Amino acid sequence: MWRARAGVPSAWWRGRLAAAGAIITDAEAAILSKRARSMFERDLEQTPANFRALTPLSFLAWAAAAYPEKTAVVHGPHRFSYRDLESRCRRLASALAGRGVGPGDTVSVMAPNGPALLEAHYGVPMTGAVLNALNFRLDADTIAFILAHAESKVLMTDREFAPVIKKALGTLKRQLAVVDIDDPLAPERGERLGDTDYESFLAAGDPAFSWTPPANEWNAITLNYTSGTTGNPKGVVCHHRGAFLNALGNALVMRFGPETVYLWTLPMFHCNGWSHTWAVTAAGGTHVCVRRPEPTLVFPAIKANRVTNMCGAPVVLNMLIHAPDDVKVRFDHTVEVATGGAAPPSPVIAAMERMGFRVTHLYGLTETFGPASVCAWQRDWDDLGLEEKATKMSRQGVRYPTVAELMVADPQTLAPVPADGKTMGEVLLRGNTVMKGYLKNGRATADAFAGGWFHTGDLGVMHPDGYMEVKDRSKDVIISGGENISSLEVEEVLYRHPRVMEAAVVAKPDEKWGETPCAFVTLKAEWEGNVRAEEIVAWCREHMASFKIPRTVVFGALPKTSTGKIQKFVLRERAKEL
Amino acid sequence: MWRARAGVPSAWWRGRLAAAGAIITDAEAAILSKRARSMFERDLEQTPANFRALTPLSFLAWAAAAYPEKTAVVHGPHRFSYRDLESRCRRLASALAGRGVGPGDTVSVMAPNGPALLEAHYGVPMTGAVLNALNFRLDADTIAFILAHAESKVLMTDREFAPVIKKALGTLKRQLAVVDIDDPLAPERGERLGDTDYESFLAAGDPAFSWTPPANEWNAITLNYTSGTTGNPKGVVCHHRGAFLNALGNALVMRFGPETVYLWTLPMFHCNGWSHTWAVTAAGGTHVCVRRPEPTLVFPAIKANRVTNMCGAPVVLNMLIHAPDDVKVRFDHTVEVATGGAAPPSPVIAAMERMGFRVTHLYGLTETFGPASVCAWQRDWDDLGLEEKATKMSRQGVRYPTVAELMVADPQTLAPVPADGKTMGEVLLRGNTVMKGYLKNGRATADAFAGGWFHTGDLGVMHPDGYMEVKDRSKDVIISGGENISSLEVEEVLYRHPRVMEAAVVAKPDEKWGETPCAFVTLKAEWEGNVRAEEIVAWCREHMASFKIPRTVVFGALPKTSTGKIQKFVLRERAKEL
Repeated sequence: MWRARAGVPSAWWRGRLAAAGAIITDAEAAILSKRARSMFERDLEQTPANFRALTPLSFLAWAAAAYPEKTAVVHGPHRFSYRDLESRCRRLASALAGRGVGPGDTVSVMAPNGPALLEAHYGVPMTGAVLNALNFRLDADTIAFILAHAESKVLMTDREFAPVIKKALGTLKRQLAVVDIDDPLAPERGERLGDTDYESFLAAGDPAFSWTPPANEWNAITLNYTSGTTGNPKGVVCHHRGAFLNALGNALVMRFGPETVYLWTLPMFHCNGWSHTWAVTAAGGTHVCVRRPEPTLVFPAIKANRVTNMCGAPVVLNMLIHAPDDVKVRFDHTVEVATGGAAPPSPVIAAMERMGFRVTHLYGLTETFGPASVCAWQRDWDDLGLEEKATKMSRQGVRYPTVAELMVADPQTLAPVPADGKTMGEVLLRGNTVMKGYLKNGRATADAFAGGWFHTGDLGVMHPDGYMEVKDRSKDVIISGGENISSLEVEEVLYRHPRVMEAAVVAKPDEKWGETPCAFVTLKAEWEGNVRAEEIVAWCREHMASFKIPRTVVFGALPKTSTGKIQKFVLRERAKEL
Repeated sequence: MWRARAGVPSAWWRGRLAAAGAIITDAEAAILSKRARSMFERDLEQTPANFRALTPLSFLAWAAAAYPEKTAVVHGPHRFSYRDLESRCRRLASALAGRGVGPGDTVSVMAPNGPALLEAHYGVPMTGAVLNALNFRLDADTIAFILAHAESKVLMTDREFAPVIKKALGTLKRQLAVVDIDDPLAPERGERLGDTDYESFLAAGDPAFSWTPPANEWNAITLNYTSGTTGNPKGVVCHHRGAFLNALGNALVMRFGPETVYLWTLPMFHCNGWSHTWAVTAAGGTHVCVRRPEPTLVFPAIKANRVTNMCGAPVVLNMLIHAPDDVKVRFDHTVEVATGGAAPPSPVIAAMERMGFRVTHLYGLTETFGPASVCAWQRDWDDLGLEEKATKMSRQGVRYPTVAELMVADPQTLAPVPADGKTMGEVLLRGNTVMKGYLKNGRATADAFAGGWFHTGDLGVMHPDGYMEVKDRSKDVIISGGENISSLEVEEVLYRHPRVMEAAVVAKPDEKWGETPCAFVTLKAEWEGNVRAEEIVAWCREHMASFKIPRTVVFGALPKTSTGKIQKFVLRERAKEL
């Protein structure tokens, strides 16, 4: 009845049902809509007045309405207000649409943190297309593989990466529209590969471009390739619904608000900056960009912009701690820093606190839009000593309020392990901030979602206080004489050694024991060449059960992936040859 | 494919499609699920791993997991931890299920703020039923109407209200299961009307009751009757999706976190405490209950619990300001207080600030789960004088980040008014925090959602800075000599008069002008009988255009609804007779 009155198009109902992944005919819609049930369903359908697909794009429209004059983006000497940011994003969407980009297409971006990549998080999905942010440390072959697999229609690429992109485009067997990002702050500017540059591209777009919100919140918004340690990378397809919810989850957990000044030390290409590309906007905060998380850029940016929040892998924290003293510009406020991946060891926490940072430990994966759990602070930890605090803080914690369920369980039977802090199981998650699945890889998707839970591949324990702790990647566990050894646990002990900067422990094949732990250790610069393997083993003997002690200790630099993760498969190969 | 592997029930797909308001057969589901489109849709369906109906019930499960020992509820000398609260809510759900309560049923609650009503916000929907919180100031006839219209299956009722409930039950023509809430803090405890009391009812329930999350986030969660000024009240049906989202919206806008201590000065029956019943839990904060927002209870509760946040209609602020000095216990921290309804006049803001409160102005309706817009603070207001600040702050502001759109427009053509701060239009909203509609009232629902927007019935203007300001309820506008006069605007001037405590302006029929403004004024106690109508008129002449000046001024107390709203229809009748 109201449809006639209100002039709502009849196609609208179809759009709604499409939210369940289906296209239905008018006739079907008519039948379905009549099967109403209780009095709470009669004449109480979803309508354009009370239902809208969830999308993080709405946060930009909101921030531009609520804080039009506020600084949205800082990039070196450049400043954009939220009004500017929104019109730049509309221009981008308009220009892309002009190149034929629309729903279901992919737009790839090869860029460091900066306005172009941030704007792509809004401008690309405004056309209905999917953003594929590329890891700029990848090699040409992998990039060519991704551009082909993702069926990218447009590539926007920072001139710094012209050499590798040129090679990748040479490998790719088809033409691609290329837009050069010509950032004046780039340290090097390689040759132009496209027929236009980013600012000219924007200038040709319409700042009042009327974009259509996604018809369906289950539509894809981004495609992020995981940096697999072996084989081809997998394309993680994320949806508007999850991006909206994880942005709100971050804002709530990290307490973002209009006074938040967020420093981009985490790469935006890394699962969309853990959804912070949208979360900071949802709070009306300010994005401060740096092309690289180098201490010489980070410390002055903190002081100049009075940064309140930042994120980074432990390697970034290490870089800040070990920066030369003259680089460490002092600031007189506290900066909240969220870290993920490996647990922050107590010396790292202590060193960060001395410099004015407060560390929070997050846990998540590309498949979960970034953070899915947080080591939430408990008031009774205030009175603990640093070591005890660090032990509490090193855990992966409790789920985000926006995650439905998290458990440590047997991945086959789905029976949760006892909350004894000892029994190992796989970390399993479910909820609305889990990916749609892997692109063109139904098999991997089915495996990841077996039993109706997302299998993280991480092994952990559940503590009696309900805090989850990751002990290892399932493939990183060392089995020695039938005993499981968590490589992470051994690494934590090594990290606490005052002369150790970094450490990684892998399995070394052993005739007698099956496997034994083998430690690869990087010493702090001032101690290089001055520590013997025996000292490391003696330290381990003091701090762990004897079967866990590394039988082999190797000193030197550790091989890393382009996102800074230690490449254990390389170390495993080395260990075999020792 | 994964379905077979993962053992997901085939009925699951049906449940998902039901999210669009429909029940479909297996055969239909099979057809629909195959109509996949782009590569971003293939093998990337919603599954139990990555999709869950949004519901605020998940916040309680989360808080009990993250902060089990933390104080969730304070009620006089009583304290419940989040673990307690969750098990009490499960008990309630279990006990209700034992009485046959399930999906689509209604449970009514007549109670002041306290554990029982808060728990009902979780325990009732845990059974799939719908919570109908009753305004405890209503008369027996209206309550009987509501119980009949809502088809309530169970009524939980505080013994303080036994007399009115007994009368209502006498009027009602059918039997109803009644549970007496026997609060030891109740000032009066009337006769028992049911066969059990609340605590015994809980004790018989199962603390480990396994409740099922709603199959569909569009399911009804609450039913709130608006206190209509004429005719029967309308039943506003709210959904799980909107309750989840507005709880997050509140938490984000009000900056709730685990250290939040929220004082319940706002009645929980008032659109579910503006969704704060769920928002405080979503942040892991503490609910501090008071049965009435009386200054003798409020001030000591603030100090004893170090309250950080509270809400209240302007009448509550007035009560606090005008409390005797010996009641105003001093506290040494700032309390954030959100107010809604009428704009806070500058003397109220100033007086509240002097006592240690910081006032924020919200706007919303029962139909929008409470707040839909906030007068968000802008940094450049810091330097303004109090009057200018108050002018800025008195506006209804910008939409919540969780509201899709808000505009001031012609309700027929939907053309937005110019943002000139002058042109009046109706305030229209749309998004996911708008009700499903009015129960058993398709006509009213259709009217409210005409054109795909929710019509608030409020008239307002849009300022050049994008801030919306409500000028009047459409029916409260006075049309004098063809000119529209905003009764609110005249009232604001009256409120600023140093001897005026409250004022309301309505239309008085006039042969020559059609209507003229008629002012009803309550003087401050110390000035009663000592101010003449001429003084008020002279004050108005200084502060407004002459056609807006009230031709008639009447002194005395103002008639109010049970929620503290001034009953203008009563005043209109009086004005006619003058």
